Amino acid sequence: MTTTPAAVVDALRWRYSTKKFDPARKVAPDVWNAIEQSLVLSPSSFGLQPWKFFVITDQKIKDQLPPISWNQTQPKDCSHMVVLAARKTINAADVNRYIDRIVQVRDIPGDPMRGYKDMMLGIVNSMPAADLDTWCAKQVYIALGFLLETCALLGVDACPMEGIVAPEYDKLLKLPEQGYTAVVGCPVGYRAADDKYAAYPKVRFETKDVIVHM
Amino acid sequence: MTTTPAAVVDALRWRYSTKKFDPARKVAPDVWNAIEQSLVLSPSSFGLQPWKFFVITDQKIKDQLPPISWNQTQPKDCSHMVVLAARKTINAADVNRYIDRIVQVRDIPGDPMRGYKDMMLGIVNSMPAADLDTWCAKQVYIALGFLLETCALLGVDACPMEGIVAPEYDKLLKLPEQGYTAVVGCPVGYRAADDKYAAYPKVRFETKDVIVHM
Repeated sequence: MTTTPAAVVDALRWRYSTKKFDPARKVAPDVWNAIEQSLVLSPSSFGLQPWKFFVITDQKIKDQLPPISWNQTQPKDCSHMVVLAARKTINAADVNRYIDRIVQVRDIPGDPMRGYKDMMLGIVNSMPAADLDTWCAKQVYIALGFLLETCALLGVDACPMEGIVAPEYDKLLKLPEQGYTAVVGCPVGYRAADDKYAAYPKVRFETKDVIVHM
Repeated sequence: MTTTPAAVVDALRWRYSTKKFDPARKVAPDVWNAIEQSLVLSPSSFGLQPWKFFVITDQKIKDQLPPISWNQTQPKDCSHMVVLAARKTINAADVNRYIDRIVQVRDIPGDPMRGYKDMMLGIVNSMPAADLDTWCAKQVYIALGFLLETCALLGVDACPMEGIVAPEYDKLLKLPEQGYTAVVGCPVGYRAADDKYAAYPKVRFETKDVIVHM
């Protein structure tokens, strides 16, 4: 156990969707590295990791983001702007690449992986392309959860943003050329002292209305 | 900061998709409470919380789950089986209920919420039902991320399971009658001493292949 139950809950109560970042404050390298590794270590269906994460710190690029983010300023003012992207039309080559990686990391021959590989190939070869894209996009939301929880635990602010114009992000960052598409954005950094949203009580339904014991 | 960057990364490296749980070990109440609150505190689009989480500890129900989980045994042997469910055909009533909750928690009049409410109503009233269901399901994956990361931080094992027969879970747990549908399962508890998967090296693509700096 790396922390206490109460400390985790406190951190998750402390976090909020930051509306205004302090452009002068940057996330320190060791803290940023842990946030980034949370993305790398996120679980995904079959372990396929059908994603790529684009981390923007170049101010010239950040300045182009508010107009394609419903004029929200967080992408420009944050320390690190993360664009979480999903693999488009995942296919047999992705399965093969993943199997190769298992064989490499675990230093085993490929044969024992045959059944696992065939199961994954059965899915990517039979599911309609749109369903595969949705499936990959869902996995990206797990990584978003890891990103947000790690930020909270390390006292770093963030703001999940579905309110990005994904086709415009794709075009600006040249994501389709790389086989990916923007799913959700997440500016990371530190809240501005005058972000009034920081003081608002967190709104959640009562636990009894969300959790059912049986 | 409730923990250190290195401790978070260690916890996320420690976690793995547990294939075999120790049926004799149960999660202690204070630890379970923090895990449950991680679900409650998960962020969602607009804060709408289009979900409900079903926590099964009744062994008679758990015993019925492997046959509708591709014969995987974790749902029966774990301490707490969580079924993460998404709201079906989210609608204006959900928006109204959420706005009412904001007004209640923040002790404000409803009028300042008008613009926010109209924006959400515009979405739920115009998006096709299938797209709304997908949107809600995606939010559930954020909660799955929070659930998994909190478990890891608290030294608790878990296993994200898309391999559940959702329509059968719906029927058994009577979810559609409550307006929800099963999206993903997650047994939580402690690994069996002989779960060989615990010893396998974690497989992830190299950081340079997953993270792009710009």
